[in-house]
Amino acid sequence: MDFLSIIVKKRNGLELNHNEIRYLVDGITNESIPDYQISAWAMAVFFRGMTPEETFALTQAMAESGQMADLSRIMGKCIDKHSTGGVGDKTTLVVAPIVAANGIPVVKMSGRGLGHTGGTIDKLESIPGFRVEMSREDLFDQINRINLAIISQSGNLVPADKKLYALRDVTGTVDSLPLIASSIMSKKIAAGAHGIVLDVKVGSGAFMKDLNAAEELANMMVRIGNNLGRETIAVISDNDQPLGNAVGNAIEVKEAILTLMGRGPHDLEELAIVLAAHMLVLGGKFENVAQAQARAKEAIYDGSALEKFKEFVRAQGGDLDWQDPNYGLRMAKTIVEVRAKQSGYIVENDAFAIGNCARLLGAGRLKMSDAIDHGVGVDVLVRRNQKIKEDDLIARVYASSEEQGIWASKELESICKIASTPNEDRPLILKVVE
Amino acid sequence: MDFLSIIVKKRNGLELNHNEIRYLVDGITNESIPDYQISAWAMAVFFRGMTPEETFALTQAMAESGQMADLSRIMGKCIDKHSTGGVGDKTTLVVAPIVAANGIPVVKMSGRGLGHTGGTIDKLESIPGFRVEMSREDLFDQINRINLAIISQSGNLVPADKKLYALRDVTGTVDSLPLIASSIMSKKIAAGAHGIVLDVKVGSGAFMKDLNAAEELANMMVRIGNNLGRETIAVISDNDQPLGNAVGNAIEVKEAILTLMGRGPHDLEELAIVLAAHMLVLGGKFENVAQAQARAKEAIYDGSALEKFKEFVRAQGGDLDWQDPNYGLRMAKTIVEVRAKQSGYIVENDAFAIGNCARLLGAGRLKMSDAIDHGVGVDVLVRRNQKIKEDDLIARVYASSEEQGIWASKELESICKIASTPNEDRPLILKVVE
Repeated sequence: MDFLSIIVKKRNGLELNHNEIRYLVDGITNESIPDYQISAWAMAVFFRGMTPEETFALTQAMAESGQMADLSRIMGKCIDKHSTGGVGDKTTLVVAPIVAANGIPVVKMSGRGLGHTGGTIDKLESIPGFRVEMSREDLFDQINRINLAIISQSGNLVPADKKLYALRDVTGTVDSLPLIASSIMSKKIAAGAHGIVLDVKVGSGAFMKDLNAAEELANMMVRIGNNLGRETIAVISDNDQPLGNAVGNAIEVKEAILTLMGRGPHDLEELAIVLAAHMLVLGGKFENVAQAQARAKEAIYDGSALEKFKEFVRAQGGDLDWQDPNYGLRMAKTIVEVRAKQSGYIVENDAFAIGNCARLLGAGRLKMSDAIDHGVGVDVLVRRNQKIKEDDLIARVYASSEEQGIWASKELESICKIASTPNEDRPLILKVVE
Repeated sequence: MDFLSIIVKKRNGLELNHNEIRYLVDGITNESIPDYQISAWAMAVFFRGMTPEETFALTQAMAESGQMADLSRIMGKCIDKHSTGGVGDKTTLVVAPIVAANGIPVVKMSGRGLGHTGGTIDKLESIPGFRVEMSREDLFDQINRINLAIISQSGNLVPADKKLYALRDVTGTVDSLPLIASSIMSKKIAAGAHGIVLDVKVGSGAFMKDLNAAEELANMMVRIGNNLGRETIAVISDNDQPLGNAVGNAIEVKEAILTLMGRGPHDLEELAIVLAAHMLVLGGKFENVAQAQARAKEAIYDGSALEKFKEFVRAQGGDLDWQDPNYGLRMAKTIVEVRAKQSGYIVENDAFAIGNCARLLGAGRLKMSDAIDHGVGVDVLVRRNQKIKEDDLIARVYASSEEQGIWASKELESICKIASTPNEDRPLILKVVE
């Protein structure tokens, strides 16, 4: 087989077979195919797309390119959850304890994030003492004991995806739905869970800006998962405004704790309950989602989910102070309030702009080598179409200096747009794909 | 400027400006842009095409990427000729002496060929003693003295094109008309001639199989040339069957000599006269092509073109023996005749298959490092739709061994297809683009 003919075949719109895709993935993994051929192939895929069969083969080959997690030592059906990423997305920190508290094991390998804020792993690291790495032995022990572990993604998981993504990132071939779907799903397949619930976000704060594209991506991922023997469903949710109020790291963990106490923002609670319910159904605990939702909500209001969260933090060495208003999380000292300049309705609450503001405060990174300031961020206290009065508190900035805090507060004044009549709204949960 | 944004711009179907294209070509030349980005860009161009302005900018930047030939020391207007390549194409060897004999300087930098047979330089090397390299000093002296020199393309002409082509060749991005047009024209522009006559071949033996595509390519090249200040015209000619009879190296030189004596195949003479006439018009010798054609034909029949050829061969050290039936050319010793198995009409004379046969006899190469056997080849004595009788001589094979000769004669028996009624024919000269 030679890769040039595979490029030309794809370029001409023909379907690659399993062997050809396996040859590609092997060549990426062992670096026997030169980068300039792989990038030409990826650009051809950008224009020609991939058939479902091609995405199945690519995902499977990438998943098998490194070590596959073996979860057979875990008792029960493991259910994974993945978000395509959005501004204010601390959902995992709420969902995972709810599901674990209901007897379904959740083992989650998360990444550090690039962009507006850190990823789940970065957020957890704002808890003093929290460990994101552990031996396989300890991991299985912890899951079998408390049903929940969230750890940093190990180095040799899906090396083919890692290399391909790095190349796509510098060759203008990131924006290809089948490549995105295969990349995400290869990591989920390799991580070993029996069922997968996907949180596909759409809107200005998400990677997918457009609902049709988000649906297409969700459909692809669900088909890939199911085809490769993992029951998969996807929930498409809005991220035109941030999810919840907090955008940062420590402040997002605090908001997750408040939500587990039944005192969090409604949208975050709503999404967490829906996602948890689907995980409970996939895990075999309930026949239907409505039942499962009721139980998920109960786990918040009877305190069992919060107890599970405490257990989980303790198990991974985290030290929270439950007497402290900030639970001992590392918060920035400078807090600047943002108040409404006029009365009216919040007509825009742009998640992308708010995320960007948080990143510039130091909450996120553009390169993996950048450091994150866990204490900084933005708490946006208003929601789209909320009625407000002049001088109402609309946001709080957590900054590392007075100067930065004032800069960010000015930014937020113009980001949170106020008008005399409300805008058309859209629901938080836009669609469930199964 | 960063190249990633240039790739994305092209990928999204937007036009690149002069600065962006200059940045690309500089990056190719000095190797500051990695190959994997250049190949992704080339694949995006494959799908998106290029605007005329983009092809002008790309051609100019590539032409200027190395040393530009300075022909100012040559007296008179220099006219160049370029063929896109076809089976049996020895036209330069006939055209150049005709034009030079009429007082227009022809300085041609030719390449060695990949494919069915060698290029013009390889063909000339079947003349004992012929030198294809000379100093700039000697080149100008020779041109000013006899109006004609054909030399091997120098190393540092258009390095950007050389590198880009090598990359396209292994990434499935050769088949892009604007890239083909820019590649050809950048070399012509850098070679310095004032006017350019292009021989665009179409058919099974040519790179372009389809007349529409050939016309599109011809149009692009003519626009590029004229836009960059070189008067350019293109003649589109058929190469579904070989041009002339001879396909090889020494046997093609012999056929060119016979044509200069007025005893060559009609199609070769016809095309040579048309191309020469256009060169004479561009060179300012004639107002109209009909006049110029008459004069070109005269140069064959009054012996002046042959005299010029002899002068040229002598000037470059070649030693032809005008008493020898093969003019002292190195011919293969084994000659096998191919005779018609039945009476009828030649309905197919496939140039690609005949070229491939010649290559397998040793007349061509697939890699630049392969050696060429100058003496071998195929003389196909029949033309499409020619009426023949059983046992008529239809071809002669020049082979390096009896075994190879017999193999090739069997091949030719099936390549030259005979039927009871003739096929639809098409003219040799299909279109002139100016």
